[in-house]
Amino acid sequence: MAHTHESGIMAARLEASKGYEEGGIPIGSVLVDRNGEILGRGHNERIQRSSPTLHAEIAALENAGRQKAEVYRHSVLYTTLSPCSMCTGAILLYKIPCVVIGENTNFKGDEDLLRARGVEVIIMDDQECKELMKRFICEHPEEWNEDIGEPA
Amino acid sequence: MAHTHESGIMAARLEASKGYEEGGIPIGSVLVDRNGEILGRGHNERIQRSSPTLHAEIAALENAGRQKAEVYRHSVLYTTLSPCSMCTGAILLYKIPCVVIGENTNFKGDEDLLRARGVEVIIMDDQECKELMKRFICEHPEEWNEDIGEPA
Ligand SMILES: [Ca+2]
Ligand SMILES: [Ca+2]
Ligand SMILES: [Zn+2]
Ligand SMILES: [Zn+2]
Repeated sequence: MAHTHESGIMAARLEASKGYEEGGIPIGSVLVDRNGEILGRGHNERIQRSSPTLHAEIAALENAGRQKAEVYRHSVLYTTLSPCSMCTGAILLYKIPCVVIGENTNFKGDEDLLRARGVEVIIMDDQECKELMKRFICEHPEEWNEDIGEPA
Repeated sequence: MAHTHESGIMAARLEASKGYEEGGIPIGSVLVDRNGEILGRGHNERIQRSSPTLHAEIAALENAGRQKAEVYRHSVLYTTLSPCSMCTGAILLYKIPCVVIGENTNFKGDEDLLRARGVEVIIMDDQECKELMKRFICEHPEEWNEDIGEPA
């Protein structure tokens, strides 16, 4: 399982890197089904698509397309950064039972709400996730604050 | 203010009707700024765009585009139906202080969480919102259940 989670986070990190190369906020996410297959992948699209709602996790869910309730309920969502309130809510809507988070040092979202609602939350404390995110925040503090709904 | 809220809900209802005419799930939403101007409008796009994340509220936020934190914090979100966990989370992310809901009879979302986090929640108990939603649920129970993450 540790190995599985490592490869899920690696796929999410690849999305984060793609986002960074595009000039975007480097947060990536993948939704994985019960067989370990990636159903959807995405990265934050605030800058690229001028989108206030395509956070990485929402982009991954969107990319997965319409799925049956049953599929979500046996899936794992991987994300490079601790999910904000919106992405937390999306996890709760679809009753995704397990969320694996690259790091929660640069930002800590609504993890307590996830746990209170019975979602398993695993923090990988991944060094690469931390470094890329930290670099972006230093380079573009205004865009980062906008993404989490904070004044510049 | 009652008059203002009535016109906001009317605009949201217009979006819901558009969605219904397109064959979609008839939920509509508008984001209104401190001056009463509509910043964004949208309706549920699950069926039309095969989207699991474009709920009406997310579609309205997306349509409003990138906004400063300050703008959201003085806005009102109107929606024809009580917001699910995802849309609740989006409201919390952007610290929208007031949510006006057409009805919560056909579905009751995470209103308690909104209130617990200090969001003003106003229920209009609007008859037209209730009737249109009820009609869709009777006609398309499977699509409706999918939209709220429930098995068919
Ligand atoms: Ca892209
Ligand atoms: Ca449409
Ligand atoms: Zn998010
Ligand atoms: Zn919703």
